[in-house]
Amino acid sequence: MKNKLNITIVGLGLIGGSLAASLKNVYGTKVSIVGIDNNARVLKQATQAGFFSEVSVLKKSKMIKKSTVVFVAAGIDSIPLLFEELGKIDFEKKIIISDVGSVKAKVFKQALKKLPTTFDFVGGHPIAGTEKTGFQNLVPGLFQGKPVFISGTRARKESVSFIKKIWKSLGSSVYSITPEEHDKIFAYLSHMPHVLAFGLNSLTRKNLSRSKIVKYGGTSYKDYSRISNSSEDLWSEIFLSNRKNLINGIKDFRKYLDKLENLLKHDSKDKIQKHLKS
Amino acid sequence: MKNKLNITIVGLGLIGGSLAASLKNVYGTKVSIVGIDNNARVLKQATQAGFFSEVSVLKKSKMIKKSTVVFVAAGIDSIPLLFEELGKIDFEKKIIISDVGSVKAKVFKQALKKLPTTFDFVGGHPIAGTEKTGFQNLVPGLFQGKPVFISGTRARKESVSFIKKIWKSLGSSVYSITPEEHDKIFAYLSHMPHVLAFGLNSLTRKNLSRSKIVKYGGTSYKDYSRISNSSEDLWSEIFLSNRKNLINGIKDFRKYLDKLENLLKHDSKDKIQKHLKS
Repeated sequence: MKNKLNITIVGLGLIGGSLAASLKNVYGTKVSIVGIDNNARVLKQATQAGFFSEVSVLKKSKMIKKSTVVFVAAGIDSIPLLFEELGKIDFEKKIIISDVGSVKAKVFKQALKKLPTTFDFVGGHPIAGTEKTGFQNLVPGLFQGKPVFISGTRARKESVSFIKKIWKSLGSSVYSITPEEHDKIFAYLSHMPHVLAFGLNSLTRKNLSRSKIVKYGGTSYKDYSRISNSSEDLWSEIFLSNRKNLINGIKDFRKYLDKLENLLKHDSKDKIQKHLKS
Repeated sequence: MKNKLNITIVGLGLIGGSLAASLKNVYGTKVSIVGIDNNARVLKQATQAGFFSEVSVLKKSKMIKKSTVVFVAAGIDSIPLLFEELGKIDFEKKIIISDVGSVKAKVFKQALKKLPTTFDFVGGHPIAGTEKTGFQNLVPGLFQGKPVFISGTRARKESVSFIKKIWKSLGSSVYSITPEEHDKIFAYLSHMPHVLAFGLNSLTRKNLSRSKIVKYGGTSYKDYSRISNSSEDLWSEIFLSNRKNLINGIKDFRKYLDKLENLLKHDSKDKIQKHLKS
């Protein structure tokens, strides 16, 4: 990339912060990053981190206008309002808005509704979250070797290519997919795993003391605890935003449990084994 | 321990094999271990491993009679027959039978039923399994830092102390607990996690192609895959052996899913968040 990259990241949590750190690692002085957040503590942390050219709340940013790409890395529920605010900015160059949200159909719908048609939109989703949140937990190489989905685009071909190129330069494998297929796949690969982990931990907390859980939990339980340490705030938004697919997943899961319960009641080891393998 | 330890391990899978390797590591020439299995391939592997004084099928062992402790490390379903066979052996010294099974009430019941009253029985359960099985996957330090439950005993005090001492010498933390409490706790901390992981993977395989699962799965999904790679043969036995507690767990889990589904249908983020935290 010949010219200096001017990138804005709106939302400096784990993903936004890691994206800034990763871009700075790869592009060094060739990238200028504006960091936007509405939390004073986060803005202070971001200023201290030193990889931003400007750190600001959205309405007060002076440099955002110079951006060629804005990555929205905020919670799903804040996206409509952020798109509206971004739509009012008089960007100096043709602008590409992208995002990192865990659901894609809803975000794309909002982009079509809220962003001016002169803005290019390229939806994205890096599969790189952890159970941690917040700028203080950022990981500079977080996207290295991780899949990134490009999903839901209303943009010139070169804008789509440009976003893909950025992710590839951070070491990610980039896939294109429709928002509908994305949301169906991740209902199973990410949202249901979180539903089950939150559920198991709720059940366990109701039945066992905290000290027993900590002392006695084996490897399998610890994996669940890790997942269910994810933010309930973030995940309740994701669950609601992918409601239809998730309800289907829950229905299917209930069938699985019903059948297992029935087999357990009738003592059939072979059938249980077959059911587990199904 | 002043005298030479004479220990027999019946069932040379991941746990039995790791127990043998760990004992040899800690006691060296002060321990003599007899390895029993009914699978010719496993017996060959065990012979090659070199830490057994004798490797044999149960009925042909010449040295088992000299044992002071027999650890039964076989699948839950084989335990009744193994106890019966062990009961027929004319041990030279007062014998302690112990085990490593994942459920304790059923094993203890079988011990009371099948073992002669002249035999001491000390039930045990190291929380140290992995998704792998088999002698070839043994880990010499597997029990280091892991909890071990002593649960269900019909034995002299010194026999219970002796078994505890062995586990402690391998680096384990030893807890005493009734079989009933053990089985309730592990329905939540181990058996339900396996039910959910098997269920999620069944659901996923039905809805997504294998290549998509492998390419797109994030960290949370990978944790589930690891757990559900456990042996269906082993786990269907465990599930059945702890049927009552597991059915209660499944019922509670279904309630959790029902409530979540209902909240998702009525669009209430605050309530979902509260439910996830509950």
